[in-house]
Amino acid sequence: MKNQSNLYDIGVIGLGVMGKNLALNIADNQYRVAAFDLDELKVQDTVAQEELERKRYLKQITEPRIEGCNNLSEMLSKLEKPRVLLLSVPAGAPVDGVCQSLIEAGIENDDIVIDTGNSLWTDTVEREKRYADNFLFFSCAVSGGEVGARFGPSLMPSGSLKAWNRIEPIWQAIAAKVDAKTGLPIERFEPGNPVKEGEPCTTYIGPAGSGHYVKMVHNGIEYADMQLICEAYQLLNQGLGLSPSEVGDVFERWDQGILNSYLMQISADVLKQADPLTGAPLVDMILDKAGQKGTGLWTAVSSLQIGCPAPTIAEAVYARAVSTQKAQRQQLSQQLSGPSEALLATINRGEKQTFIAQLENALYCAKVSCYAQGFQLMAMQAKEQAWQLDFAEIAKIWRAGCIIRATFLQSITKAYQQDSELENLLMADSFAKALSEKQQDWREAVSQAVLSGIPAPCISSALAYYDSYRCETLPASLLQGQRDFFGAHTFERTDKPAGEKYHLNWSGDRSLHKM
Amino acid sequence: MKNQSNLYDIGVIGLGVMGKNLALNIADNQYRVAAFDLDELKVQDTVAQEELERKRYLKQITEPRIEGCNNLSEMLSKLEKPRVLLLSVPAGAPVDGVCQSLIEAGIENDDIVIDTGNSLWTDTVEREKRYADNFLFFSCAVSGGEVGARFGPSLMPSGSLKAWNRIEPIWQAIAAKVDAKTGLPIERFEPGNPVKEGEPCTTYIGPAGSGHYVKMVHNGIEYADMQLICEAYQLLNQGLGLSPSEVGDVFERWDQGILNSYLMQISADVLKQADPLTGAPLVDMILDKAGQKGTGLWTAVSSLQIGCPAPTIAEAVYARAVSTQKAQRQQLSQQLSGPSEALLATINRGEKQTFIAQLENALYCAKVSCYAQGFQLMAMQAKEQAWQLDFAEIAKIWRAGCIIRATFLQSITKAYQQDSELENLLMADSFAKALSEKQQDWREAVSQAVLSGIPAPCISSALAYYDSYRCETLPASLLQGQRDFFGAHTFERTDKPAGEKYHLNWSGDRSLHKM
Repeated sequence: MKNQSNLYDIGVIGLGVMGKNLALNIADNQYRVAAFDLDELKVQDTVAQEELERKRYLKQITEPRIEGCNNLSEMLSKLEKPRVLLLSVPAGAPVDGVCQSLIEAGIENDDIVIDTGNSLWTDTVEREKRYADNFLFFSCAVSGGEVGARFGPSLMPSGSLKAWNRIEPIWQAIAAKVDAKTGLPIERFEPGNPVKEGEPCTTYIGPAGSGHYVKMVHNGIEYADMQLICEAYQLLNQGLGLSPSEVGDVFERWDQGILNSYLMQISADVLKQADPLTGAPLVDMILDKAGQKGTGLWTAVSSLQIGCPAPTIAEAVYARAVSTQKAQRQQLSQQLSGPSEALLATINRGEKQTFIAQLENALYCAKVSCYAQGFQLMAMQAKEQAWQLDFAEIAKIWRAGCIIRATFLQSITKAYQQDSELENLLMADSFAKALSEKQQDWREAVSQAVLSGIPAPCISSALAYYDSYRCETLPASLLQGQRDFFGAHTFERTDKPAGEKYHLNWSGDRSLHKM
Repeated sequence: MKNQSNLYDIGVIGLGVMGKNLALNIADNQYRVAAFDLDELKVQDTVAQEELERKRYLKQITEPRIEGCNNLSEMLSKLEKPRVLLLSVPAGAPVDGVCQSLIEAGIENDDIVIDTGNSLWTDTVEREKRYADNFLFFSCAVSGGEVGARFGPSLMPSGSLKAWNRIEPIWQAIAAKVDAKTGLPIERFEPGNPVKEGEPCTTYIGPAGSGHYVKMVHNGIEYADMQLICEAYQLLNQGLGLSPSEVGDVFERWDQGILNSYLMQISADVLKQADPLTGAPLVDMILDKAGQKGTGLWTAVSSLQIGCPAPTIAEAVYARAVSTQKAQRQQLSQQLSGPSEALLATINRGEKQTFIAQLENALYCAKVSCYAQGFQLMAMQAKEQAWQLDFAEIAKIWRAGCIIRATFLQSITKAYQQDSELENLLMADSFAKALSEKQQDWREAVSQAVLSGIPAPCISSALAYYDSYRCETLPASLLQGQRDFFGAHTFERTDKPAGEKYHLNWSGDRSLHKM
């Protein structure tokens, strides 16, 4: 793959946190990078950082592996053809701005432009078409934040297979790696010493847009997973009265068991962190207004539009929205009463231990439920778009590098390996069995939350999702009756073939009519 | 208002269920209607129905009040200028199709075209601009279904004030009426004898699109309200073991109290209805797959996009989605376990009565909570769009004619009359007090549902909403800590001014940096 000429292997355009770290990661893997940013300082900074690391960690290599460019024409002249260009610029108009500039700079028909930003997947679909006469527009969603970009992200590429074949070796080199046997991330955060063994966390997802869609759902799941952990924290902290650091201890223990995950681990870390300014627990000094960048809400919107139940993801988005309305909460906390007796606050030590154990199971069940929602959403969208998504592979590449990495994903991979057509994760024997065993604890925990007045919108919505799917018959029968009553919307009958519509003459003689 | 010439007062285009009944309603109020539909049979049918009713009920009037037209040019020639044209065609492309045909038929600059379909509000905004050079595009959302259209709907007009001034008398005549003293609908379903007394359920909502937006939120609330009733039905039927007709009795009783509403009343009616084919309760013969037309999901999508918490409305949309996946539910009902002991099934007679009373209060609280969500959504959108919405008036025009009509809306009107800037309905003293009194019952009911394994996604999500707003401090602090940890998203501090961003160097020396 690596060229023998003086030409560079890849151009990186946009050297913000993600672009710079991706460039360093690529350089670490012995590829030669041409780098450009509108901000000249960022170019200098990236080149200097590479030089510093090379001198400090890689004494044997003397040649620079990243070279700065003054403009896009210069970059194009330095790249091996067909050229590979990686874009790391803000989603939206900037992506098209760079594409336009590349056309003006003389990009060629079989050159490849890879958008690695947080673009909306439908924009990616349109761009592939829009630039088809100018170059191959390809996209790759990147998860893992700054550290992931530097030492191994989870990469979700989609678009033309021709482009994928060209870039696959670079992608496999820079991606996070998983120990094939244990399913655990192989983590090494050392410049100049990238992880070479293990299974790389990248796989070709499918046609244009599919990779960004999958990443969007990943983020939706991430929103829910984070909120679930926050709800557990509130129950233990405000409910049981544990200090942040004590909850951190509980979370560390949970991280050793079925709840093992990166998010659980960093949550424990955050909770045990003292504030450098005051010495108080840092979490008590952080303002409780959650920000968001949009991918969680895109996931919820997509699920609503396609008719896929994803209530726990939507509840997580709404929980962030409620958090931002602090003034309203301050006033309402004075106006609205809570339970006469806060159950959790009054229980004894043994009962507290019981509750903590129940909550661990509740959290696990809620987590499975929200992953089931996310995977069902991808499956329904794939059907709609005629994408052939390989869910075993998708779960695999989320085992390392990305924010929701967890051993748990290994079980999802297994479930899809056993049945690639699985309609709902809850149908996998392993998960159905695990949830059936733990559901009683889930109920107890939710019931305690409700009686104690502590909000647990995601843990309880996930349970309602579980219980809804347990119902062979739902009261949607009454709902269809209501709709027929006020709007003559008709209904189907349980004793007649599907598709046959009936209407009752509610305002007249109450006769039944086949429509 | 009524013209003395031979010209007609209004043209009605599209004579489906809604158009035909609106035409008959207008004719009942002594306006002369020119009617057109692409389907000639529908024109004949509307004209014939008017004639039949006139002869049967209005012996004193002999002149036809509805005349059919063969085409739009003919219609334009028959109308008093500036012309008023009411469109009742399917939302989307058909609306623009008719507008284009009207331009070709010679519509004039100051003529008024009123879209009464279920259009997406943003389409309405665009259309006002698009047709500005050709005619005044106006819109009026209509609620109340077939019967409402015929004898008095709730009407939500928006757009040019000039257009509104021209049509206001017709609108006030055909709208549903409310007894000003009691706040109750004045219902009279007699052709030729429209209700003339009382307060008409129509008010100018605001600039283009605002009326359709308000109607959209009305429908979102309607989705949630319907689902809440369905959940109560499932708890009483599958939980307590009451028959549909016994639940109907409970609902009839509830309809006499704080839960009085049209939806409660028709639910009781549906539950007590026997199936004409089998004699079984009809509800048991109706297939439990709920349909939807889109306005509920538009409401949820809008709330996500604008960052307004409306979880109960979203849960209602998702509940319909789960209902359609009956095959999955059938399989999962075999695979997933429920509680070891279904609490509600085992309680004694006295406890059952207690539970029914708790559920009544729970339903009331959940209902207030979901109306609070809907009104907050309208308020946030109004702010975004710079609409001056009068929420006291909006609640007023929903007291009759529309699907969510209920005495309860009178209390909402009062709350906004006392404080028109109310940010959240829960902040109104009356509602804060009522919910504080009843919240313990709400908790007991949700807890019982959870422990009995009966899904109640909306009743419990509404409670989580209530409890979230009761929290001066939410665990979003931990969430911001997580986000800063993995993505350097920064956080604000409780002890520093708003807007100051901080970042902890998590992967390094754990120093704190002001960004």
